[in-house]
Amino acid sequence: MSTDVHPLLADRVITWDHEADVVVAGYGIAGVSASIEAARSGAEVLVLERTGGWGGAASLSGGIVYLGGGTGLQKALGFDDSAENMKAFMLAALGPGADEAKISEYCDGSVEHYNWLVDNGVVFKESFWGEPGWEIPGDDGLMFSGGENSAPFNEIATPAPRGHVPQMTDKRTGEKGGGFKLMEPLSKVAEELGVRAEYDVRVQRLIIDGDGRVVGLAAKQYGKDVHVRARRGVVLATGSFAYNKDMVATYAPQLNGRPAAAIEEHDGRAIRMAQALGADLAHMDATEVAFFGDPQLMARGILVNARGQRYVPEDTYPGRIGQQTLLKNDNQAYLIIDESAYEEGCATVSSTPYFRFQPKWVAESVDELESDMGLPAGTLQSTVEVYNRHAADGSDPVLGKKSEWVKPIGTPVAALDLRNCTAGFTLGGLRTTVDSEVLHVSGEPIPGLYAAGRCTSGVCAWGYASGTSLGDGSFFGRRAGISAAKG
Amino acid sequence: MSTDVHPLLADRVITWDHEADVVVAGYGIAGVSASIEAARSGAEVLVLERTGGWGGAASLSGGIVYLGGGTGLQKALGFDDSAENMKAFMLAALGPGADEAKISEYCDGSVEHYNWLVDNGVVFKESFWGEPGWEIPGDDGLMFSGGENSAPFNEIATPAPRGHVPQMTDKRTGEKGGGFKLMEPLSKVAEELGVRAEYDVRVQRLIIDGDGRVVGLAAKQYGKDVHVRARRGVVLATGSFAYNKDMVATYAPQLNGRPAAAIEEHDGRAIRMAQALGADLAHMDATEVAFFGDPQLMARGILVNARGQRYVPEDTYPGRIGQQTLLKNDNQAYLIIDESAYEEGCATVSSTPYFRFQPKWVAESVDELESDMGLPAGTLQSTVEVYNRHAADGSDPVLGKKSEWVKPIGTPVAALDLRNCTAGFTLGGLRTTVDSEVLHVSGEPIPGLYAAGRCTSGVCAWGYASGTSLGDGSFFGRRAGISAAKG
Repeated sequence: MSTDVHPLLADRVITWDHEADVVVAGYGIAGVSASIEAARSGAEVLVLERTGGWGGAASLSGGIVYLGGGTGLQKALGFDDSAENMKAFMLAALGPGADEAKISEYCDGSVEHYNWLVDNGVVFKESFWGEPGWEIPGDDGLMFSGGENSAPFNEIATPAPRGHVPQMTDKRTGEKGGGFKLMEPLSKVAEELGVRAEYDVRVQRLIIDGDGRVVGLAAKQYGKDVHVRARRGVVLATGSFAYNKDMVATYAPQLNGRPAAAIEEHDGRAIRMAQALGADLAHMDATEVAFFGDPQLMARGILVNARGQRYVPEDTYPGRIGQQTLLKNDNQAYLIIDESAYEEGCATVSSTPYFRFQPKWVAESVDELESDMGLPAGTLQSTVEVYNRHAADGSDPVLGKKSEWVKPIGTPVAALDLRNCTAGFTLGGLRTTVDSEVLHVSGEPIPGLYAAGRCTSGVCAWGYASGTSLGDGSFFGRRAGISAAKG
Repeated sequence: MSTDVHPLLADRVITWDHEADVVVAGYGIAGVSASIEAARSGAEVLVLERTGGWGGAASLSGGIVYLGGGTGLQKALGFDDSAENMKAFMLAALGPGADEAKISEYCDGSVEHYNWLVDNGVVFKESFWGEPGWEIPGDDGLMFSGGENSAPFNEIATPAPRGHVPQMTDKRTGEKGGGFKLMEPLSKVAEELGVRAEYDVRVQRLIIDGDGRVVGLAAKQYGKDVHVRARRGVVLATGSFAYNKDMVATYAPQLNGRPAAAIEEHDGRAIRMAQALGADLAHMDATEVAFFGDPQLMARGILVNARGQRYVPEDTYPGRIGQQTLLKNDNQAYLIIDESAYEEGCATVSSTPYFRFQPKWVAESVDELESDMGLPAGTLQSTVEVYNRHAADGSDPVLGKKSEWVKPIGTPVAALDLRNCTAGFTLGGLRTTVDSEVLHVSGEPIPGLYAAGRCTSGVCAWGYASGTSLGDGSFFGRRAGISAAKG
């Protein structure tokens, strides 16, 4: 694969192999959303997809879409929310550096966006899952997916669950999973609207005219060079750079060697192609961080770092635990849990039973456990003493874990080894406007070029909530389609 | 000031106002080093400087240059070092993500670089300063400046001091400071070599020929548009983006509102100009972080975060304390110190006596202090108990503070409020080769364009050691001059 991403001048193109008003690169959540809206705006739309079919990372995902502000589902299940409340949470949880303009538009438009998904055939079952978890183990439609109901955010905004999950049938993965149940109806709508797709197309370079306007894409299809003309605009929607080792090393080195929840097609190519035109970037270091701990167990114990210190409320969004562990605690974590809490946790329903590792150490006292783990004398003991002292009153003044999860740690007591148990995907990318125009470093949009999804920097900077990727991919994907159709 | 940084085509330039073989933008440490080497390579050199004279941020700095591997000064003062030992430290302390190729070249060439500085008139006094400190309070020539002799690095590499400081005369600031004493002889050499300079020149855009080669710069001089032709090459050496609020918000949001140890001219313009040509970036999120604590006091107490937990060996490089505080502990720090240690610390010599704040809280017991500070009951008490338990043996198994600084904390005991006491400058920038060529996102150098200093990503990624900015600015500045002169 050539690394040449220099723009190609249109007057050097001899044959245009494909042509449309709007050409979309990538048929995941951002691409399908852009295609639908571009087609509804009256544009002829062509999608170029690298694999053999629509879907992208979205189809393989759990399908959580971050929506709120008072959606039909939230209301039906009795949860109060407003755009302002949603903004307050997102600004606090997704920064520092979160894009206020994007978050504001996203929250103000969230109810409409929910309705759009429903109108296009996405089904959300009217039932709520309230247990700690990465995802919903059954077919419920709503969950907390960003720590809204945990410290410190439960004091910053009124907790409202915003993880909307398309209803699954009998299985949770493959063609029955939540992500597939999001993509399937949308791709069907796109097809009905006359959106065409070419598969096995790897985009290589942008094509520009003499004024610097983007007018197409050069690509490889079945190994052959093809040139694709876009009469009105090009939309880049090809996903993150999590699988580009060189870019990860240069921009997000903490994630070196641990890509996850992304697909190998996420090679950053579209970001490079746009950079070659002078496109600006944002928050290239930001990453989602998955943590291989079962939330049902974590909430029932305490997490400590390599110094035996607690550092995160254990009942919060597990992705926040992942970020705090990898980025702030050297990727070192142990779960300290007593026998009865471990057994209680293991008896619950969870979407991640495979994260219920066996304890590495078991002891009759914390003193003994500390010694077995090789922690400096007194460190773990004092952490447990302070925790238990307040747990006796059902409180956790150190980190604010909710009282329902606070119980003194007894004996026998165990430690699960959760060191180096993180992975994730990149959140940074092209800097775009709220209308999904790609910004040049001079500050103005690059004519003819639009982008959405994880090849852009979206609503998240340093923080994350599950559902924000499918959320901003679909929300700003629609904007990209509308903008590109205007030309 | 226009934000248009689009490249200008040479055939649209009517008048070339200035011309030289090599044109250098910025007359700080990287610019002067590039100029000297370009001139010695036989090139006619012109420097474009935005202010009224040479100096840049370098002249206003403490002047520490990070050098090692067995320099004349290290040897004269009895310190063993080698290029391999220096590499081991730098790779451990300056990552994750540190550029191994740059560090390798930098260490292998460090003795030669030291000799080059001395040959060009920089004077390093043969005396060592061994106390904890940000800088040297007197006129000594060598110090530890990156935590080489502290945990965890003192077990990763053999500790060797590498902070080389040009000898000052009577005062430590202004025209008598270390940075001035570095820049003064170098700029004199440049002048003797016939390097010309134009002042009050603000570079605006790069000028390219039809093949995309950089052949000059468009600039403003005394408010008038000027065009400067570079027959062989352009060197960008205009410093960091610490004073560009928009870039800091987008790339390094933790530093929002707290620029320091940089100058207002550090507006990121050169980075933007090169990005407009498709130049790649690296580690834009990386920052140096200054911490407003006096090292002589910090080494004698314990630093705790908002949960009353220790998090860094207090006798390490204060810039490491700054990074750990801002980036990993929410910018929250308190120094816990007993009366006798406080008095002992205040009686020492320090380059930062103005950081010897009065305690905010004083108490007769740790219990009382904890309560006065509003920390959760038991947190600070248990931290002090564990510290004192091991301090009785002179050890610190939790963080590895050296035994010479480990003493049990007695009473009366005080706390200094060091919350939100950080500031710093940005370390990310243009991605360059070890020969200071600016890399295009396609992976190959952009013809005719070179860069060095803080507008590039140098030897530091996430970590920092004092002297690495003047160090890699001068080292890779020289490379930029040599490369540009070859054309």
